[in-house]
Amino acid sequence: MTPLLRPTDRDIPVIALTCGDPAGIGPEVACLAWAEPAAHAHAALRVVAEPAMLAAALRDRRGMPALEIEVVSFADRRPSTPGTLLVVDAGESTCVPPLRLAEVSAAGGRAAVRAVEMAFAATRAGHAAAIVTGPLHKEALHAAGYDVPGHTELLARACGLADDAASMMLWLPAAAGGGLGVVHATLHESLRTAVMRLSPAAIESAGVRLESLLAALLGRPPRIAVAALNPHGGEGGLFGDDETTIVAPAVAALAATGMDVTGPLPADTLFLRASRGEFDGVVALYHDQGHIPIKLLGMHRAVNITLGLPLVRTSVAHGTGFDIVGSGRADPASMLAAIAAATRLVEAGWSGVSASARACSPSSR
Amino acid sequence: MTPLLRPTDRDIPVIALTCGDPAGIGPEVACLAWAEPAAHAHAALRVVAEPAMLAAALRDRRGMPALEIEVVSFADRRPSTPGTLLVVDAGESTCVPPLRLAEVSAAGGRAAVRAVEMAFAATRAGHAAAIVTGPLHKEALHAAGYDVPGHTELLARACGLADDAASMMLWLPAAAGGGLGVVHATLHESLRTAVMRLSPAAIESAGVRLESLLAALLGRPPRIAVAALNPHGGEGGLFGDDETTIVAPAVAALAATGMDVTGPLPADTLFLRASRGEFDGVVALYHDQGHIPIKLLGMHRAVNITLGLPLVRTSVAHGTGFDIVGSGRADPASMLAAIAAATRLVEAGWSGVSASARACSPSSR
Repeated sequence: MTPLLRPTDRDIPVIALTCGDPAGIGPEVACLAWAEPAAHAHAALRVVAEPAMLAAALRDRRGMPALEIEVVSFADRRPSTPGTLLVVDAGESTCVPPLRLAEVSAAGGRAAVRAVEMAFAATRAGHAAAIVTGPLHKEALHAAGYDVPGHTELLARACGLADDAASMMLWLPAAAGGGLGVVHATLHESLRTAVMRLSPAAIESAGVRLESLLAALLGRPPRIAVAALNPHGGEGGLFGDDETTIVAPAVAALAATGMDVTGPLPADTLFLRASRGEFDGVVALYHDQGHIPIKLLGMHRAVNITLGLPLVRTSVAHGTGFDIVGSGRADPASMLAAIAAATRLVEAGWSGVSASARACSPSSR
Repeated sequence: MTPLLRPTDRDIPVIALTCGDPAGIGPEVACLAWAEPAAHAHAALRVVAEPAMLAAALRDRRGMPALEIEVVSFADRRPSTPGTLLVVDAGESTCVPPLRLAEVSAAGGRAAVRAVEMAFAATRAGHAAAIVTGPLHKEALHAAGYDVPGHTELLARACGLADDAASMMLWLPAAAGGGLGVVHATLHESLRTAVMRLSPAAIESAGVRLESLLAALLGRPPRIAVAALNPHGGEGGLFGDDETTIVAPAVAALAATGMDVTGPLPADTLFLRASRGEFDGVVALYHDQGHIPIKLLGMHRAVNITLGLPLVRTSVAHGTGFDIVGSGRADPASMLAAIAAATRLVEAGWSGVSASARACSPSSR
């Protein structure tokens, strides 16, 4: 089918979408996002998936838009339009006969990884400018024999890097433009370990990554805040001295590079202030300090952006939604925000890694 | 002046309001709340304050309601009405000539403490059934020579108890009825200390206090959840084992008493679920784990309820608001919610301390 409306004469980037685990809500949010004209305004979208899986999703799940499917190759550079899914076939249709929805399976894990690998190869070959991924299911990955916790590590390995080379920013776009970004100084470790291992270097590294990414997203120097570790920011040393011994030196080192950064600020009021637009980004010191507020402020529209890899990759921040899959309740807001963020980063020429000019040398402390 | 409208024949409790630091927004939110008919529906209110300070507040601050002031004694048992402030004189008018707004002063600290002491004496004498307090300023207390961090410790000492006899629940009432209560297992200490000292006993104690208070507020057995300490609830031991060694045993002990309790649940999604009405109360394991979500969900209407003292005392959860004092921007929602919560607790016959039947004996673990 030929699209009725075809943008022309515009050099817009090709962005490769993946659906994540085909038994989850990934295919739904990809199709729902595709049906939104805004998704195509600045990007030529391609879904990397098994066409039969997508056809089944469009047919069998509630609330799906009326979309045609056209199988294309990455060599086809035309713009995308809301009515026709342009699908790059991700390979043999191991998911047909139909995968059972909301069930963990090795086939689902394999299909998800294959699509990501194909999208990654397309970016390496210059066919796509960015990857936007749907939600994986960790157990399905394990069932398929992949010993990897998630997308970020999968892509790090594909780039020939260590698992911990990559990190993430949670990005919550605001309706009025701008938004709130959060990078963690410590993340996937026990709270005890995080408290013990927290260092000025970890905070500085998070601050540099956060500023680099926000500058690309916003097109201006971002306003950064660093959270305190202890209640009331330590209450002048009464509730701990990490603020003076660890956090404040890191903030001073970041400020010395010219960054617009303030802190340490008590975490409970900081996120309230940030949510009101006072800051563009927050360095959170541990997992839940950043995740509790972002989830409350709007996880359904949050984006996970990969930092530290030489590629642009954004992702929905939600999971596979096995509890609502196929019911018509899946919300494409996060997928749409992930497409918008990827498009913006490509337009800004962001490389995927931090600007080295901002790196704090140890001697700066 | 005689109120035009006077409820009769109802046995409604007398509730003593205090304004906190007179240089802050306390007098404003007390007067604004007083002007709301709903505040008087189930309570006969009295403001314990210096009449001249209140007169100045009504005259000099923006957006204040048109209220008469009538000085009364606690022996006067009549109902209160929205048009006339019934003021119990808190003593010599050390704040006149007028206190400067938004300034820390010893006079402000003294006036605030004197009002609380008088309200406390009224409850001890049976003249008032509960105390509702406005926001103190810690530095003003110190300037006035009081070596006490806040209301809770002040009242604990007035009861002849140790500072740590009392604790607090943060209560966020929902518009549709019900609400969300949070009690902390650890609170005013460094995060490092909190993680090291967290014990099943501390979690059980918080759970018992939370359930007792919520049962009185809601009039039914509450649904309680206990937060996990580590990211993803420890991810099956990968990010710490506190969930299995400390939190789960406490939850089991609480459940063995017949409590409707679940956990440990990952903190980031737990507060999202609780905010949607899935739980009535959450045991938070450390200060910011409870305060970050409560502040984001609506600190302007949150209530601080004292637990562990033999009296009913609720408070606004916000501070003195020196940045907005007198500007007409102060919101009485928290004061109104504090009045409603105090009234409800008095009606329920809540004693201020936990029901001993729920206490977990050490042998239950």
